[in-house]
Amino acid sequence: MNSLQQTLGRIVPVDRGLEPQIRAHLDDLTKPQGSLGRLEDLAAWYCLATGTAEPTLGKKAIFTFAGDHGVADEGVSAFPKAVTPQMVRNMLSGGAAINVLARHAGADTTVIDIGVDDPLEGADGLVRKKVAPGTGNIARGPAMSIEEATTAVETGIALALEAAAGGVTLIGTGEMGIGNTTPSSALFAALLPCKPEEITGRGTGIDDATLQRKIEVIRRSLDVNRERLGTPLETLAALGGLEIAGTCGLVLGAASARVPVVVDGFISSAGALAACRMSKAAGDYLCFSHRSQEAGHAKFLECFGAEPVLDLKMRLGEGTGAALAMTLVEASVKIYNEMATFSSASVSNRTD
Amino acid sequence: MNSLQQTLGRIVPVDRGLEPQIRAHLDDLTKPQGSLGRLEDLAAWYCLATGTAEPTLGKKAIFTFAGDHGVADEGVSAFPKAVTPQMVRNMLSGGAAINVLARHAGADTTVIDIGVDDPLEGADGLVRKKVAPGTGNIARGPAMSIEEATTAVETGIALALEAAAGGVTLIGTGEMGIGNTTPSSALFAALLPCKPEEITGRGTGIDDATLQRKIEVIRRSLDVNRERLGTPLETLAALGGLEIAGTCGLVLGAASARVPVVVDGFISSAGALAACRMSKAAGDYLCFSHRSQEAGHAKFLECFGAEPVLDLKMRLGEGTGAALAMTLVEASVKIYNEMATFSSASVSNRTD
Repeated sequence: MNSLQQTLGRIVPVDRGLEPQIRAHLDDLTKPQGSLGRLEDLAAWYCLATGTAEPTLGKKAIFTFAGDHGVADEGVSAFPKAVTPQMVRNMLSGGAAINVLARHAGADTTVIDIGVDDPLEGADGLVRKKVAPGTGNIARGPAMSIEEATTAVETGIALALEAAAGGVTLIGTGEMGIGNTTPSSALFAALLPCKPEEITGRGTGIDDATLQRKIEVIRRSLDVNRERLGTPLETLAALGGLEIAGTCGLVLGAASARVPVVVDGFISSAGALAACRMSKAAGDYLCFSHRSQEAGHAKFLECFGAEPVLDLKMRLGEGTGAALAMTLVEASVKIYNEMATFSSASVSNRTD
Repeated sequence: MNSLQQTLGRIVPVDRGLEPQIRAHLDDLTKPQGSLGRLEDLAAWYCLATGTAEPTLGKKAIFTFAGDHGVADEGVSAFPKAVTPQMVRNMLSGGAAINVLARHAGADTTVIDIGVDDPLEGADGLVRKKVAPGTGNIARGPAMSIEEATTAVETGIALALEAAAGGVTLIGTGEMGIGNTTPSSALFAALLPCKPEEITGRGTGIDDATLQRKIEVIRRSLDVNRERLGTPLETLAALGGLEIAGTCGLVLGAASARVPVVVDGFISSAGALAACRMSKAAGDYLCFSHRSQEAGHAKFLECFGAEPVLDLKMRLGEGTGAALAMTLVEASVKIYNEMATFSSASVSNRTD
């Protein structure tokens, strides 16, 4: 059994007692101390998360959860809902951005139907874990029942544990779901907390009038669901999405197995935030890949105290930011493991 | 013959007329328009530099020029001068940061002795192009003669042309030389121009008193050499370094052969700036890899109007920032070439 409660019980903070040993090794490499900046921090993070000062790199895997959203009916996206299953098929045939970037990063990709409003017949390679054919419209009621949200979270947990057992040592998050910046913004507003207008952006590219409507929809969803916003799980169920709950579970499962996680962008961050509200220690296992161009992401990163690795003005999701940042995490571990030390290379250290 | 003058005559601005076709292709890929941000810009830059809307990726190569500096005698570095040849040997045996990151990026590395104050006996794999055993002390006179500077620039040109002829389609710059942030700051001060204190930082990690001395040394070098600061080549000869002149030539040679160049950090930027002052069009072929932690780099980037790809608080040089950014350039070209289009993948485009 890998229930949510059992998983939460297994997540422990990383052992910071290892850090002096890790930093001493980094300082002994043939470079001025600290001169590789964030790359050194990434190596230290990977070591701490995996609980060793002698890290190894195993397989890398990106999990892209796909789900639909009842709130798409409110006209909050520039793209029609049919794009969710179309993009799932595109990902399965290798033509989406995440496929290209995961191949580039040497990461496996898994596409999970956790809540697409389409049977996706004949979609080979799809991991079929549909909890429901999309969520309810959060502007009119809850997105999911507590049971549905729990099942979606536990789906993510199971995938992470399976990956860990199969030799994956670095996990990336990803998602696809037309309309899913709206429930993400609603979740941020409830969980950070902050005002809807501070955390709501243009998603795939909506105009000013649609942005105003989207903010109104988020205000209404917070109001309609206000009695349901109790525990983080209850809040996730009321305002979230099935792919967001799956991402939350992926983070929790990975943290429980000490597998470091590279979090993609805005929507993945909402899932990661829900996970951290359920287990503060889960945050020790997270690296935020990039600052999304989606307007609210900077607000989240600031409130959460997270410094992302990249800032490339991306706003695509799917796991694309995670894939790129994984290449930097890998580079950092190679630096840690492959560079010569001052003594081994007979290089003089600084003179003071 | 590939003299400096002939090379300058061969550098032409990129054909911006190709840009609409390049952007139209990027917009037809299965993602919201512009949602891959800087990655799309990098792909467009690579296309324009190579002069085609159907780009191919060939070999990648990083050139690390090593040279010593008479000004090191002024006590402007935290490391002793002996570290230059020691690090050259470390690079040749594969243990330096640039080796690790170039392997990670799939790039070949070439280490060139263009001016190390050491015979480097038995250093296998070293490309021996020593122009002089280090430069003169710029605080007391010129770094190089015009002839030496020209030879160093032409060495860089020849390496770039040879690489281009051998199938290299992406070049990274790199350098090694104890004390070389000092001539770089002096060059920036003369060529941007700006004040020495605006462009001078802590290099490998000097204390406050040494920083003040370093700024004074730069002021003195500008004063002592003021009659020599005429053309960009004359300024480079008076204030620069042999590895900086080599980098300048590498940029010019690459631009003349339409090979895109990823510029490393602070010192490489000084070489690139000298190249752009000799040929404005050379700038079309440059991508600035990262914002160095070296204090003056932000000032240069701002004055030059360059937006670097990465900001990882690195300040090591060697080509390490270039190696990391090359992986993103490669990712961008793969996005351009490998993603499905809306029509090919049967994905609906936006509804407005």
